[in-house]
Amino acid sequence: MSKLWGGRFDGATDANMDRFNASIGFDARLWRVDILASQAYAKATCQAGVITEAERDQIIDGLEQVAAEWQAGDFQLKPGDEDIHTAVERRLTELIGPVAGKLHTGRSRNDQVATDLRLYLLDAIDTLSKHLTDLQRTLVAVSEANIELIMPGYTHMQPAQPVLFAHWLMSFFWMLQRDRQRLMELRARTAILPLGSGALAGTPLNIDREALARALGFAGISQNSMDGVSDRDFVAEFLFWAAMLSIHLSRLSEDMILYANPSLGFIHLSDAYTTGSSLMPQKKNPDAFELLRGKSGRIIGNLTGLLVSLKGLPSTYNKDLQEDKEPLFDTIDTLTLALPVLTGALSTLRPRPQKMRQALDDAMLATDLADWLVARGIPFRRSHHIVGQVVQLAEQRGVSLAALTLDDLQRIHPSFDADALTVWNFERSVAQRRAAGGTAPAAVRAQIAQARALL
Amino acid sequence: MSKLWGGRFDGATDANMDRFNASIGFDARLWRVDILASQAYAKATCQAGVITEAERDQIIDGLEQVAAEWQAGDFQLKPGDEDIHTAVERRLTELIGPVAGKLHTGRSRNDQVATDLRLYLLDAIDTLSKHLTDLQRTLVAVSEANIELIMPGYTHMQPAQPVLFAHWLMSFFWMLQRDRQRLMELRARTAILPLGSGALAGTPLNIDREALARALGFAGISQNSMDGVSDRDFVAEFLFWAAMLSIHLSRLSEDMILYANPSLGFIHLSDAYTTGSSLMPQKKNPDAFELLRGKSGRIIGNLTGLLVSLKGLPSTYNKDLQEDKEPLFDTIDTLTLALPVLTGALSTLRPRPQKMRQALDDAMLATDLADWLVARGIPFRRSHHIVGQVVQLAEQRGVSLAALTLDDLQRIHPSFDADALTVWNFERSVAQRRAAGGTAPAAVRAQIAQARALL
Amino acid sequence: MSKLWGGRFDGATDANMDRFNASIGFDARLWRVDILASQAYAKATCQAGVITEAERDQIIDGLEQVAAEWQAGDFQLKPGDEDIHTAVERRLTELIGPVAGKLHTGRSRNDQVATDLRLYLLDAIDTLSKHLTDLQRTLVAVSEANIELIMPGYTHMQPAQPVLFAHWLMSFFWMLQRDRQRLMELRARTAILPLGSGALAGTPLNIDREALARALGFAGISQNSMDGVSDRDFVAEFLFWAAMLSIHLSRLSEDMILYANPSLGFIHLSDAYTTGSSLMPQKKNPDAFELLRGKSGRIIGNLTGLLVSLKGLPSTYNKDLQEDKEPLFDTIDTLTLALPVLTGALSTLRPRPQKMRQALDDAMLATDLADWLVARGIPFRRSHHIVGQVVQLAEQRGVSLAALTLDDLQRIHPSFDADALTVWNFERSVAQRRAAGGTAPAAVRAQIAQARALL
Amino acid sequence: MSKLWGGRFDGATDANMDRFNASIGFDARLWRVDILASQAYAKATCQAGVITEAERDQIIDGLEQVAAEWQAGDFQLKPGDEDIHTAVERRLTELIGPVAGKLHTGRSRNDQVATDLRLYLLDAIDTLSKHLTDLQRTLVAVSEANIELIMPGYTHMQPAQPVLFAHWLMSFFWMLQRDRQRLMELRARTAILPLGSGALAGTPLNIDREALARALGFAGISQNSMDGVSDRDFVAEFLFWAAMLSIHLSRLSEDMILYANPSLGFIHLSDAYTTGSSLMPQKKNPDAFELLRGKSGRIIGNLTGLLVSLKGLPSTYNKDLQEDKEPLFDTIDTLTLALPVLTGALSTLRPRPQKMRQALDDAMLATDLADWLVARGIPFRRSHHIVGQVVQLAEQRGVSLAALTLDDLQRIHPSFDADALTVWNFERSVAQRRAAGGTAPAAVRAQIAQARALL
Repeated sequence: MSKLWGGRFDGATDANMDRFNASIGFDARLWRVDILASQAYAKATCQAGVITEAERDQIIDGLEQVAAEWQAGDFQLKPGDEDIHTAVERRLTELIGPVAGKLHTGRSRNDQVATDLRLYLLDAIDTLSKHLTDLQRTLVAVSEANIELIMPGYTHMQPAQPVLFAHWLMSFFWMLQRDRQRLMELRARTAILPLGSGALAGTPLNIDREALARALGFAGISQNSMDGVSDRDFVAEFLFWAAMLSIHLSRLSEDMILYANPSLGFIHLSDAYTTGSSLMPQKKNPDAFELLRGKSGRIIGNLTGLLVSLKGLPSTYNKDLQEDKEPLFDTIDTLTLALPVLTGALSTLRPRPQKMRQALDDAMLATDLADWLVARGIPFRRSHHIVGQVVQLAEQRGVSLAALTLDDLQRIHPSFDADALTVWNFERSVAQRRAAGGTAPAAVRAQIAQARALL
Repeated sequence: MSKLWGGRFDGATDANMDRFNASIGFDARLWRVDILASQAYAKATCQAGVITEAERDQIIDGLEQVAAEWQAGDFQLKPGDEDIHTAVERRLTELIGPVAGKLHTGRSRNDQVATDLRLYLLDAIDTLSKHLTDLQRTLVAVSEANIELIMPGYTHMQPAQPVLFAHWLMSFFWMLQRDRQRLMELRARTAILPLGSGALAGTPLNIDREALARALGFAGISQNSMDGVSDRDFVAEFLFWAAMLSIHLSRLSEDMILYANPSLGFIHLSDAYTTGSSLMPQKKNPDAFELLRGKSGRIIGNLTGLLVSLKGLPSTYNKDLQEDKEPLFDTIDTLTLALPVLTGALSTLRPRPQKMRQALDDAMLATDLADWLVARGIPFRRSHHIVGQVVQLAEQRGVSLAALTLDDLQRIHPSFDADALTVWNFERSVAQRRAAGGTAPAAVRAQIAQARALL
Repeated sequence: MSKLWGGRFDGATDANMDRFNASIGFDARLWRVDILASQAYAKATCQAGVITEAERDQIIDGLEQVAAEWQAGDFQLKPGDEDIHTAVERRLTELIGPVAGKLHTGRSRNDQVATDLRLYLLDAIDTLSKHLTDLQRTLVAVSEANIELIMPGYTHMQPAQPVLFAHWLMSFFWMLQRDRQRLMELRARTAILPLGSGALAGTPLNIDREALARALGFAGISQNSMDGVSDRDFVAEFLFWAAMLSIHLSRLSEDMILYANPSLGFIHLSDAYTTGSSLMPQKKNPDAFELLRGKSGRIIGNLTGLLVSLKGLPSTYNKDLQEDKEPLFDTIDTLTLALPVLTGALSTLRPRPQKMRQALDDAMLATDLADWLVARGIPFRRSHHIVGQVVQLAEQRGVSLAALTLDDLQRIHPSFDADALTVWNFERSVAQRRAAGGTAPAAVRAQIAQARALL
Repeated sequence: MSKLWGGRFDGATDANMDRFNASIGFDARLWRVDILASQAYAKATCQAGVITEAERDQIIDGLEQVAAEWQAGDFQLKPGDEDIHTAVERRLTELIGPVAGKLHTGRSRNDQVATDLRLYLLDAIDTLSKHLTDLQRTLVAVSEANIELIMPGYTHMQPAQPVLFAHWLMSFFWMLQRDRQRLMELRARTAILPLGSGALAGTPLNIDREALARALGFAGISQNSMDGVSDRDFVAEFLFWAAMLSIHLSRLSEDMILYANPSLGFIHLSDAYTTGSSLMPQKKNPDAFELLRGKSGRIIGNLTGLLVSLKGLPSTYNKDLQEDKEPLFDTIDTLTLALPVLTGALSTLRPRPQKMRQALDDAMLATDLADWLVARGIPFRRSHHIVGQVVQLAEQRGVSLAALTLDDLQRIHPSFDADALTVWNFERSVAQRRAAGGTAPAAVRAQIAQARALL
C-alpha cells in the first residue's frame, strides 16, 4: 500500500506501527466535515488562481460522491487509509484521477485536521446546547408544578432549614445556566479557522482566508500559523466545560440517589430510569443517576488526559496531538446520551410530600427561634447560644423543640414569650426568606420567572 | 476555648480534630476581604433596620481597628480561632463588646466565605491580568526587535520549513491572548455576590442584595441561595484557566530549553535566569524554564484535586468545600511569581542568528520545490512524490539538496528548469507565505500591529 | 550573596528568579536526613581515602552542631541559602572553615537530594504504618464489640440484604490491609540508595556504595547513575498509595455521613469529632468525615500533579523534579493527621441499633424467599421472577412482604407452603451466609480472628 | 424484550436509558472468562449439592457451545442483552432450557463481574509481562552491541558529562525492572477470588470458595463479601502501574525525539517506525515516539478517571463501578500495542557515533578538572570555583577548554601542572566512574550482566 507521504521512504512501515499510528478507527466520523472543508478549500484555491473552475467542479463533485458513499455506508476502507483525510483523498483520486492531487495544494493535514475538528465540535456544541435547554426547561417545569412543597434542606447532610423542593431543584438550573454561558463563550473560540496555516508556516497561495472562514461558518481566522496548527485550547476548554457540567450532574445525582433511599424517600423514580438486580427480586436501583455520577470520572479523566498530552510539547504540530480526538469524541458521545437520560428521569420522577414532611424536624427551626430573639434586640451571637441551650434541653429530654413549654424556654432566657412559639411552623420559616435568591415561595416564583426569561 | 457554634455541645473537640478542622493556617490571608465584606454587610443590615446607625458605626470602626492590627502584623491568634471569620469576630468582640454579636445576624459562614473568596480572587485576577499584559508586551517587543531573523521551524521536532524567529515568538502571544479572554470571562462569573444566601435558605432580613453587591464591587447577585453557598465553579474555572495558561508556558519553556541546548543554540539566556551546578563548574542551566514547565504539573494537580473534591457532593455546603482554598491560593501564588520571571527571562534572552542559520537545511525548502512544480501545472500530490525522490537522491549521495544539479533534477522529472534552482533561498521561502497568519515579514508585521492594537 | 555554583557566573540572578528557584521554604524539613546522609558520606569518603580521619571527624562534629542548631530552632537562614543542602554546607563552612568544602567531593545535589528524600519518606512510611495499624485495630475492636448487630446492607444505596454492622465495618479493614501490603512493597523500593550517582555519571571515587547503603539503613543501591538521580517512582508510588487509601477513607466517610443523617440515623458521632454552625444553633455536623472525604481530592491532585511534572522529561535530572517535594510533604502531613482523627472518630462513635432495625424491611428478605423456592427445585431464574411478583403484589397493596398470607403466595406459585413464611427473619437470613467472607456471625468471627492474626 | 431482573417492574425502560445503561458494547470481550467462571461455578454448586451432576453437565456443555459461537464470531446479540452475563445466560437458556436458570443460584452479577474482570486482567498481565521482557531484552542487546560508544550526558538538557550510550539506554532497563516488580505484586492482589460474595452479603450455599479459587487459577479468596463486590483496587493499581510505565516510555521517547533532531542527530530511526508529511516531501517524523509520549496522557487520564469514579462511593456495589471497564480495556489495548512498537523501534535504530562525538565538548570535563584539583588536596568547593573561572576564561576567549594553555590555567591557580591537561579526554572521564552504577565500561558491563541475570 502506498502512503500520501511515501516519496522519500524506502522501507515499509512495520505492521504494528501502522496500527499504532492509524487514526482512521476513530477519526472516520469526521468524514462529513472533512469533505465540507475540502469543498470550500477547492473553491478558495480556485479563486486564488491555483486550480481552474473545471478542476474545482471536478473536485467538488467527486467529493460529493465520496460523501454519498459515506452517507450510504458504502465507503470501503483500504489498507493505507491511515486517517480520514487520506481515505477521502485516496477515494477521490480513484473517482476523478490525478486532478484530485491538486486539492491538497498549500494545505497540510496539520491545518486540515484542526479545521475538521473545529467544525465537528461546533456541530456538537449546538446539539448539546439544545439538550441543555431541554434539561433546564424540565427543571423549571417540575419546580413550577410543585411550587409549594416543603422539604428538609441539608448542609453537611444534616438537617439545616426547611426549603422549597422547587428551590432545591432550581439551584441546579443556575449551575446549568453557568454551563450554558461558558459553552457559548468557548463556541466563539472554537469558531476560528486555522485552514491556510499550512504545515506550520502559512500558505504561499493567495487565499482569502477570511472569505474561506465565512464560507465554512467560522467567525474569524487564526492569526499565527504556528499557533494555528497546534492550538488545542478549544478541545481542552470543551473538556473542562464538560467536566464542570459533569460535576453539577454528579451533585444532582448524589441528591437523587440519597432521596430515593427509602429512609429519606423524598422521590419516587420511574421504572423507565431504574433497573433491577439479577439476584435480589425486590431491587429497584437508581442506575441512571449512579451512571451520571460515575461518568464524571470518565470526563474528568478525559480532561486530565488531554492536558497531560499537551504539557511540555515543543511548538507547532507534534504527533502527540493525535490524542486529542478520542477524549473529545467520548465526551461528546457521553453527554449527548446523558443529558436526555437525565431530562427523562427528572420529568418522570414524582416527589413524595409525606416523606418530606416526615423528615422535617422542629430543630430545623432553631435559627428562626434565634432570629425571634434578635428581633427582641438580643445580639445574634447571644441568641445563637441561647437557642443552643434550648436544643440541648430538648435533646436531653428526647423531645422535639416544639414540645418544650414556654416555661422551659423562659427558664433558659426570660425574653421568650408566647409569640416565640409561633416559630414552630415550617411554612412561616420558608416564607420569611423572601429576599432575592431566598427560599420563600415568592422569591422562588421570581427565580422561575427569571429562568423562563433566560430560556 | 469557646467556639462560635458551641451552644449545644457538651464535649470538647479532640485536639487532632481541631487541627484537622482549622483553616486559619491558610485562610488568614482573607482578612482584608473578610473585613471589607463585613463592613459592607453592617451597612446593609443597618439599612434593613436590623441594627442602628450607632451600632453600625461601632462595628465598622471596630473592624477598621482589627484591619489595622492585621495590616501591622499585630493581630494575635488565639486558640479557638478556627478560621479567619471566627478570628475577626472574636477580636471585634474583644474590642467593642456584645454589639459585635449583631454583625453575624442573618449571615452564615457559608455565604460569608464564598463572598470573601470571590473578593480575593477578583483582586488576584486583576494582578495576574497585569502580569499577563507585561508578558505579552515583552513578546511583541522582542519580536519586533528581531523581525527579519530566520530560524528553522519544526514539526515533530524535525526540520520543516524556515520561519521568522518573530513569528515563532508571536505564536505564544496568541495563546496568551486566548488566556486573557478567558480570564475576563471568568472574572465576570466571579463577580457575583453570594452574601445574603444565609446558610442555605436565604436571609430573613430585608437586605437589598443588589445594593450590597454594588457596594462591594460585584456585578450581580446569585439567584438561588442553595447554589450561592456551594457554587465553586469560579474556583474550578480559574484553576482550569491557570492550567491552560501553564500548558502554554510549558510549551514555550520546552522550546526555550531545547533552543538553549548548544547543539541547537538558538538562544542565549541571561545569567539572571539560569543557575549552575553544585558539582559541574561549567553548567549554566535554564532553571527558570524548567520550573515553568514543571509547575504545570502542580497547577493541573490543583485543578484535578478540586474537581475530585467537588464530585458527587450532596447539595449546598459540605465541609469538603474547605478544600477549595489551598489549591486556589497556591495557584495564584505560583503564577504571580512565574509570570514576571518569564517576562524577565524573555526580555533578557539574546537570539543567536548564526546558530539558527547553521541549523537551516535546504531540505526545509523541499515544499517550495514542490510548489514550484505545482506552478508548472503538476498536481501537488505528484509534485510531492517527485520531490520525495529528489530528497532521497540527495540523501543517498550524502549531499544537501542545493548540491544537486539541474541535470540530477531533470533525470527525476523533465519539468525542472534552471528557475527551479531559485527555490534554494530561505528568505524567498519565508517571504512567500504572506497570507494572513503566515510567516512572511509583511504578515508578521501585520500580526504585531494587530497585537499592539489588542494590548 | 554567593552561590555554591557561582564560579562561572557574571551576573546576579534576578530577585524574582531567586524566589522562584529557591526550595528552602519547603525543603528545610529535610535538615535531619540531609545531615545524617552527609555524615555517612563523610565516613565513606574517608574510607575511600578522599579525606583524612581528622577531616572526617571535623566534618561530622560540625554537622552535629548544625543539627543541634536546627533542633533547637536556632538555625539562621541567610540570603543565598537556596535549599537545605546549600544552607547546611554554608553553615558548616562558617563553623569549620574550608575543610567543609571537602564534603561535597564526588557528590552532586542531584544524588544528595534523592537520598535525603528517600530517607525522609522511609521515616514517614513507618509513622503512617503505625497509624494504619491503630486504625485497623479500632475497626476490629468496634466490630467485635457489636458483633451481633444487624443493619441494612445497601447496594446502589437501595436496601439489599441484612448484614452485620461488624461485617460492614470489617469490609474497611480489608481495604486497609491491601493498603498496608502496598505500603510495605513500596517501602522496599524506597529503600534503594542513589548516593554515589554523582550528577548523572556516577562517582569517580572508590566509594563502597553497598556499605554506605547499609550505614544509612537502605536495603540496596541503585544500579544506574542516570536513573539514580532522576528516579522519582518512589514518590509517585507513594502518592498513588495515598490516593488509593484516601479513596477507601472517602468511601468509609460517605457511609458515615449518610448513616449520621437522622433519617437513617445508624450512628451517633461524638461531640469530639463534630462541629456546629455559626448560624444554625441545632447543627452537629460530621466535619471529620467530610474533610476525610474532601481530602481525597487534594491527594489525588498531588498524584496527578507529580505525574504531569514527570511526563516527557528528558533523561536524568531536570529542575522540574524540584516539584516532587511539596506534593509529597503535603500528602504525608495530611495523612499523618487524618488517620488518627479517623481512629478517634471511630472509637468514639456509637451504633444506634433501634434505627438500624427500623430501616430493615422484609423486602430485603426477598432473595431468601427465592432461595427457599430454589431449595424446592425451582431454577433460580424462575424463583427470582416469582418473588418479583410477590414484591409487586405487596407494593400494590402497600404492605410489607411478611403481611402477605400463604394464600397470597400460593396464588402466585403453588410451591409455597407454611415453611416459606419462616424466611421473614433477619437473623435467619444473616446466619445462612456462613461461607467464607459471608455475613453470618460465625463467618464474621472468623474474619475477625484472621484480622487479629494479621495485626 | 425481557430483562433478567424484570419480575417486579411494570414499565419498560426508556430507550435512551437502555443505551446509557448497557455495557455489552464494551464488556463483550469478557465472554471467554465469563464462561470459564460460570463453568467452574456450576461445578462448585454441584459439589455443594445445589444442582445434580446431570444438570452440571448440561450447563457446562451448553456453555461450551456458547463459547464456540463467540469464538466463531457467530454469537448473535439480541435486544435485552444488556451485558455479557445476561447475553450468555440468555443464550444458554435458548440452548438448554430452564435448567440454565439454575446457574445463577447464589450468585449475583456483582460477584460475577468482579471475577470476570480479574480473570481478564490476569491474562492481560501475563501478555504485558512478556512484552515488557522483550523490551528489556532489546535494551540489553542494543546496549551490549554498542558498549564503548560515548555520548554527551545531559542534565537540564545542558551538556553535563560524557556517558556511555549503553549506560543511557540501560537507565531505562531499570525503570522497566521496577515496573516489572510492581506488575508482579499487583498480579498477586488481582488473583483473589470474589465469587461467592453474592450481591453483597455472601452466599447461602455451602460452596468451597477455596477450591473454586484454585479451579480458576486464583491464589486466594476475598475475606469480606461487601468488600469483595466493590473492590476495584486491582483496577486502579493496574492503571497506576500503566501510568508509571507510560511516564518511563514518555521520557525515553522525549530523548529519542530530541536525539533524532538533526542538530543533535545521535540516532537514526528506521523507516519502519517513522512517517512522512502530506505537505513536506523531506519529512521523516519520529511518530512512534511522539505517540508513545502522547499516550501517557491517555493512560494518566484513565487512572484519574477511575479514581474520580470511585471517590466517595457508598459501600458495596454502585452502578458507578461500571465505569471501571473502559479505562482498563483501553489501557491494556494501548500498552499491548505500544510495547512491541517500542521494541521494534529500538531494535531498528542506529546510533550515529560521529554526531555524538561532535556534541561532546571539553566543558563536559570541567568536573574532571575539579576532581584533579581535589586530588591535589584542594577542597572540592574551592576547586569548583577555580574551574568556574577556567570556564569563564574560555568563554570570554570563545575557545574550548582544552585550548587554554597551562599558563592560562596557572594564572588562575598555581596548583595546575602539565598533568592537568590529561583530563581533556572523554574516554578517561568515563572510565573513572567505575563504582557500582557508574558509566565506566566495566561498570556498565556489570550492569548488563546483572540485567541478564534478572531476565
